[in-house]
Amino acid sequence: MTAGTPLTPSAVQVEQDRFRQNLATASREFFSTQRTVLGSIAQDSIGLVDAIEDLTTGGKKLRPLLCYWGWRGAGGADDDAGIITAGMALELFQAAALIHDDIIDRSDFRRGAPSVHRRFEARHIDGGWRLDPERFGAAAAILAGDLCLSLSEEAFAGIPGVPGGAGRARSIFNLMRTEVMAGQYLDLLEEAVGPAREAGDAVERALTIVRFKSAKYSTEHPLRIGGALAGAPESVLAGYSAFALPLGEAFQLRDDLLGVYGDPEMTGKPAGDDLREGKRTVLIAKALQHCDPADRAALNTGLGRSGLTDAEVVTLRTIIDRSGARDEVEALIAERAAASSSALDSLDLDPLCREALSSLATAAIVRVS
Amino acid sequence: MTAGTPLTPSAVQVEQDRFRQNLATASREFFSTQRTVLGSIAQDSIGLVDAIEDLTTGGKKLRPLLCYWGWRGAGGADDDAGIITAGMALELFQAAALIHDDIIDRSDFRRGAPSVHRRFEARHIDGGWRLDPERFGAAAAILAGDLCLSLSEEAFAGIPGVPGGAGRARSIFNLMRTEVMAGQYLDLLEEAVGPAREAGDAVERALTIVRFKSAKYSTEHPLRIGGALAGAPESVLAGYSAFALPLGEAFQLRDDLLGVYGDPEMTGKPAGDDLREGKRTVLIAKALQHCDPADRAALNTGLGRSGLTDAEVVTLRTIIDRSGARDEVEALIAERAAASSSALDSLDLDPLCREALSSLATAAIVRVS
Repeated sequence: MTAGTPLTPSAVQVEQDRFRQNLATASREFFSTQRTVLGSIAQDSIGLVDAIEDLTTGGKKLRPLLCYWGWRGAGGADDDAGIITAGMALELFQAAALIHDDIIDRSDFRRGAPSVHRRFEARHIDGGWRLDPERFGAAAAILAGDLCLSLSEEAFAGIPGVPGGAGRARSIFNLMRTEVMAGQYLDLLEEAVGPAREAGDAVERALTIVRFKSAKYSTEHPLRIGGALAGAPESVLAGYSAFALPLGEAFQLRDDLLGVYGDPEMTGKPAGDDLREGKRTVLIAKALQHCDPADRAALNTGLGRSGLTDAEVVTLRTIIDRSGARDEVEALIAERAAASSSALDSLDLDPLCREALSSLATAAIVRVS
Repeated sequence: MTAGTPLTPSAVQVEQDRFRQNLATASREFFSTQRTVLGSIAQDSIGLVDAIEDLTTGGKKLRPLLCYWGWRGAGGADDDAGIITAGMALELFQAAALIHDDIIDRSDFRRGAPSVHRRFEARHIDGGWRLDPERFGAAAAILAGDLCLSLSEEAFAGIPGVPGGAGRARSIFNLMRTEVMAGQYLDLLEEAVGPAREAGDAVERALTIVRFKSAKYSTEHPLRIGGALAGAPESVLAGYSAFALPLGEAFQLRDDLLGVYGDPEMTGKPAGDDLREGKRTVLIAKALQHCDPADRAALNTGLGRSGLTDAEVVTLRTIIDRSGARDEVEALIAERAAASSSALDSLDLDPLCREALSSLATAAIVRVS
């Protein structure tokens, strides 16, 4: 570890709070501008922006914060407007992904509130409108997600000094989007065709999905985008990857455990939601690999049944527990956390940035929501 | 009309064919690169790019051609790579909009082939995969549309010399996306809540949808983006709008007529598809305004019923005919065509560009598919 002046956690906190506030202010201004644009088309269309703003107001801001510290760690100034815009673009991209993911997964809740398609569906029902409320909800949410994705790009393209196509930050941003969509598609494919494929490869396939659908865009790419915007050399970006990719994988593996074992009060989602959605996570792949034929049949039958009762969820949880899969996933998380932490030690950072990244890493891995 | 050397139509055709070929070559290279990117994630994910490429291979290329002539008309060179990339970005944007629009409208066909969600559904059925084929098809098509939208942005951001956020072409591109999504949302809202709203405003509301969902992004914005990329002054861009906006409205009004009266052999869609989808077009708004109570009730009941028989489609068509709505829409088209043509006369263009825009305008308004 680089020697340096000892710092209390509050120095990081102070700077982080200021960034969060600046991000919130910039977002409000951005949405206010968008409301004006939509209002000049038709007042009715403003509902699309409202849905997006409500969603982006919540959340942990993990991606913008990683982007910020990636920037600071590469010598970026603490009062730069561009890095705030970059953080906003990342938040909007995540929101777009969540809106469409919730349609695909039929998730009723997000961040403790109804998901966007359910909100539009409720407006339809409350208004006593014509045709099918559920279809209206899904259609409106497809459009809200599309607008959100476009706004993410609009924000990113508005970062001062980001060149059109050649810049490294732009390349990472482009790759990030493609990887997330490919990862989501692989996830979908795995639910549909995975059970018929080679069982021995299922864990490896689930790890690929973790990496591309979640890990890279949750941690590695935001940190690298911040670094690239600050003009960090490739060696620094490589160091960022070594720290952030295992962190991102640990983050998602923790998410998979929360999706099955999480406390609904904390996660904002019903207990066992991932089981009802039939997600073929690393946890599930390992459980199917290790459990006996009767348990395997029960697990395969129950997964993806939206009508699973709470008692059935408990039964499936017990099957997963006794297969040893839960402990194995905890071990994978610990392994990745150690790799990430050791890569952080090797990074040449000032104490403030090191402390910030270390505490973000801890928050991402040791969490209950 | 500006005096100039008389030109045979073939001079336009030669240049236009070369542009189309360059566009096709650039697109193939772009998709080939994307296949490599996706292949490095997982071979399975390449299916997303295949679906997008198949869709963009068809179509009239109206938007890229308008963008090209907008560029040429403002002094852009005939062999510039950037304007080809811009055309590709517009094609990809349209493809993204079509993929999601077809999910929303439950359209089974597009350009004479199964729509993207139906293609993914068919893969699921053919493979005998797990869970629901229709849901898989819709989910995969949501992701294909998202990827397509991202790739459109990636292409646009790659146009050399387009500055990050400040450029006029970028501003038009941003506005275009927001307007299309807002217009699609208004369209959806009109189907759901329109019948309960003030009937006297229905034609005006339908015209707003025409303008934002279709007209502006089909003609006005592509032409202006081409002009802006070539550095055209605001006065030229204003002249482009005066020509292209009424043209785009006429284009979409023609499309609405084809959606009800079109020959399936030519449109690539079943007869009366728009009636089954329940679209609240200007044609329908005018029919409901003018017809007697019995016809109005029959029309309101039939619209949006996916199971309409061919005989019922014929009945609804007859109701629309005798309301006079069809003739009125033809008159609106003629009015806009005249306004567009007169604005073209006022533009200061060389004869080649004038001829090109004139023939594109004719093709957009007088068409059968």
